Amino acid sequence: QFTLIDWKPRRPDMLADAFGLGKIMQDGLVFRQNFSIRSYEIGADRTASIETLMNHLQETALNHVKSAGLMGDGFGSTPEMSKRNLIWVVTKMQVLVEKYPSWEDVVQVDTWVAPSGKNGMRRDWHVRDCRTGQTVLRGTSVWVMMNKQTRRLSKIPDEVRGEIGSYFVDREPIIDEDSRKLPKLEHNTADHVRSGLTPRWSDLDVNQHVNNVKYIGWILESAPISILESHELASLTLEYRRECGRDSVLQSLTAVSDKTIDASPEAGIECQHLLRLESGAEIVRGRTEWRPKSAQGLLTTGPILAANA
Amino acid sequence: QFTLIDWKPRRPDMLADAFGLGKIMQDGLVFRQNFSIRSYEIGADRTASIETLMNHLQETALNHVKSAGLMGDGFGSTPEMSKRNLIWVVTKMQVLVEKYPSWEDVVQVDTWVAPSGKNGMRRDWHVRDCRTGQTVLRGTSVWVMMNKQTRRLSKIPDEVRGEIGSYFVDREPIIDEDSRKLPKLEHNTADHVRSGLTPRWSDLDVNQHVNNVKYIGWILESAPISILESHELASLTLEYRRECGRDSVLQSLTAVSDKTIDASPEAGIECQHLLRLESGAEIVRGRTEWRPKSAQGLLTTGPILAANA
Repeated sequence: QFTLIDWKPRRPDMLADAFGLGKIMQDGLVFRQNFSIRSYEIGADRTASIETLMNHLQETALNHVKSAGLMGDGFGSTPEMSKRNLIWVVTKMQVLVEKYPSWEDVVQVDTWVAPSGKNGMRRDWHVRDCRTGQTVLRGTSVWVMMNKQTRRLSKIPDEVRGEIGSYFVDREPIIDEDSRKLPKLEHNTADHVRSGLTPRWSDLDVNQHVNNVKYIGWILESAPISILESHELASLTLEYRRECGRDSVLQSLTAVSDKTIDASPEAGIECQHLLRLESGAEIVRGRTEWRPKSAQGLLTTGPILAANA
Repeated sequence: QFTLIDWKPRRPDMLADAFGLGKIMQDGLVFRQNFSIRSYEIGADRTASIETLMNHLQETALNHVKSAGLMGDGFGSTPEMSKRNLIWVVTKMQVLVEKYPSWEDVVQVDTWVAPSGKNGMRRDWHVRDCRTGQTVLRGTSVWVMMNKQTRRLSKIPDEVRGEIGSYFVDREPIIDEDSRKLPKLEHNTADHVRSGLTPRWSDLDVNQHVNNVKYIGWILESAPISILESHELASLTLEYRRECGRDSVLQSLTAVSDKTIDASPEAGIECQHLLRLESGAEIVRGRTEWRPKSAQGLLTTGPILAANA
């Protein structure tokens, strides 16, 4: 469904992005930035964590707006949005990971925006291994505008459409929409519940809200450790419903889909997730799909800077 | 005490490190690597978090060993160490932060090693703002060898000394040793206690141990939020006593030093910290010093990718 129109590994391109700040590509519509995977961005499997990959998506989204000269006084808001106290909020995010990169791999992230319905914006990402050109991840997301003071959703004002409209590309989403409804989990339908989750100081963003990438860590908190050990995350669908702040106390609920419980160890697994306040309000609904890890992911030959025992 | 012998901002140098993998400098003894600060590495103050800066130290330490051609089969172990199942463990870390960098600042990290006593190695770091040359951070640490199987400390074998000895520099530590004893905190001497802290899956390193940079987040968990809001971390001294794994349940204890409790809001603050297992075993002792934030650190003009409300 998605054609790699202009992909070929190009060394000069890569050098042009010497400081990893990225740049807008020739057609003016695709923003590209390279990231080298650092030792502290890899996890127990020696590959980049899903949070690391999602962080790269966030960084390129912000740098795209900045490179286009459209950064107002807020992170990611255009000048006309800033005037009206409007901010972008993400309502849906869908990611397919084909291959997790390793320490010192360099990934190349392409991102672009498109209209989504009448009042939304779609942002897609295509992440590739710089050396091989192999796809690492494909992602798509839907954004709407919210008034920062009233916290109510807003139409896209004409003045804002004037700023951003010329950046919209006419492409199908890079992945098919996962249109299956995300079910509402409850205590009695969840297989695993982790309660009492609270933000760490370092989880807060400049607005003292929890950055939405951090939610993924909490969602995985209630995934059974046996799945984390034997499988890797292949896809992730998130619906963001409410923000949470530094005093929030959260519960993470996971249901492992019935149909996979008795399957062979080689089979994939599907999970449903809910992150909610202990008071009951829903923060994020999610679905994850998992595939068995390849043997190479299981090596453990030494600690990183182990502490004294 | 420390002289900037050969420091001048050099653009060609920076370009040579296009992918942020670093390189050994002309004298062969100092390893240098640049990092651009990314949006997801900044916190509520819009500046890089202390964890981010410590991650850069870890990354350069590993890349230094790798660039010297001394990486065995483990992270940071030389071939002769790997043969003997020896790994480096850090016993002490001391960091002074002069100025926290902001999003898109590029920092340059220099690191080198020196002998420490008969059987230890010292590793120092000097982090500067690439554009201005201003010091961001100075750090020093002490490392010893441990047998991975027996978990007992080891002398440095002659064969290992042969591998690494030629990399040792003859320099005084970049900061004076904080030789004041770190007191043992107890429930009745601590002002603040956070219990029930557990590693998240993403906190684990390739050995399923908690990476020592993560301890800092836990230590700050018991620091009063009022200090985190009004002050910034100016210095950090850590003594690592025991490693912890994925099933550990920890307590974080903080005592705010008596002498500063009644001081003016402009004064610095000193805290003593202990991170221990709920069973009582000590993991890390620490001391932190805090200085009042400058006004520029207090802006909050917009969220990063806020979730829908």
